[in-house]
Amino acid sequence: MRTFIVLGHRAALTPDFTLNDLPGSAGRLDILCRCVTSAFCLSHGIRRDVMVYLILQNQLMIRLEGARLKHLNPDERSTGALLQKALLAHQEHPESEIESTPGIFISKGALPDGLARVKEKETVYVLHEEGRPIGEIALPQEVAFVLSDHCNFQPDEEALLKDYSRLSLGPRSLHADHCITIVHNQLDRAQFANRTLLV
Amino acid sequence: MRTFIVLGHRAALTPDFTLNDLPGSAGRLDILCRCVTSAFCLSHGIRRDVMVYLILQNQLMIRLEGARLKHLNPDERSTGALLQKALLAHQEHPESEIESTPGIFISKGALPDGLARVKEKETVYVLHEEGRPIGEIALPQEVAFVLSDHCNFQPDEEALLKDYSRLSLGPRSLHADHCITIVHNQLDRAQFANRTLLV
Repeated sequence: MRTFIVLGHRAALTPDFTLNDLPGSAGRLDILCRCVTSAFCLSHGIRRDVMVYLILQNQLMIRLEGARLKHLNPDERSTGALLQKALLAHQEHPESEIESTPGIFISKGALPDGLARVKEKETVYVLHEEGRPIGEIALPQEVAFVLSDHCNFQPDEEALLKDYSRLSLGPRSLHADHCITIVHNQLDRAQFANRTLLV
Repeated sequence: MRTFIVLGHRAALTPDFTLNDLPGSAGRLDILCRCVTSAFCLSHGIRRDVMVYLILQNQLMIRLEGARLKHLNPDERSTGALLQKALLAHQEHPESEIESTPGIFISKGALPDGLARVKEKETVYVLHEEGRPIGEIALPQEVAFVLSDHCNFQPDEEALLKDYSRLSLGPRSLHADHCITIVHNQLDRAQFANRTLLV
């Protein structure tokens, strides 16, 4: 499993935004939509071995499960509509986790909840410009990455993440969705090379 | 200079589409919008040393010049609006190249025109799943990449591209914008490593 925990520091907590303005009215939800596309979308298919946790303002958690995911298209607007549906479902059922569309679950939740879900089974890394170059590491199969939207990690998040290794993807400061694309490619190439060696 | 020539096989040739449906009414213009974002957008800035040629149905060419580019935001819809403005400007001035907004130029043009603009100064590669792994090549500074949207290269395009080397980015079939992100990362890392070696 490959997991991405993405922190959306200003992302909308309620569905009352317009899909015509994801960056503004939805608090840069466009970034999270692109992260979802990068995490799941192949040229003609969905990566089923992926899980994404979107943490909205450290209050809500939207979990996208590749194995069950349906109706996901690569464009931002249709992904925004799926996330909007999740927020609406949460508004109607705020007390428990609910599956708003196949493979998309929403509940109350913050970064510690996301970490608690992954840290027993997966090795957790933090994507950070000041980390160790990702190419120097032999990444495990079961792996989770924490990354932030356009905002830096906040002090309380830094404190929660301080014990995990930091990985850098290169010398330039990149958008979160571009980071996910590069991580996937790094893992794809490494796993393919390993398989080739084993044959 | 890094150049990307992206073939949009079904992309709209006129501005009469709605920004609410870039995948449908605009002929998968969403893909070209994401390619523009991947080509130019850093976390907090624009890559100025980049040129993008969008070839629409082998009839129109939209050229985006990093050094002059303004008003580009990372979300799909606002990029779609810039491309729509370009198509409108072309409709009003169909005979010559026109700069519709700073750094965005439109004119009649097909793949051979795009290639003619780059092939004297830049080494041209074709991004293709069956190519040589990109990691095996020492890429030059002045480099251009040709890639396709969600459609395969057509036979006439294959014929035009047959003399250029093909490069593959990994074992999975990826979206065009994800390919651009990976190419940039490959070049960023190689150039950084070279600079470090030279110090």
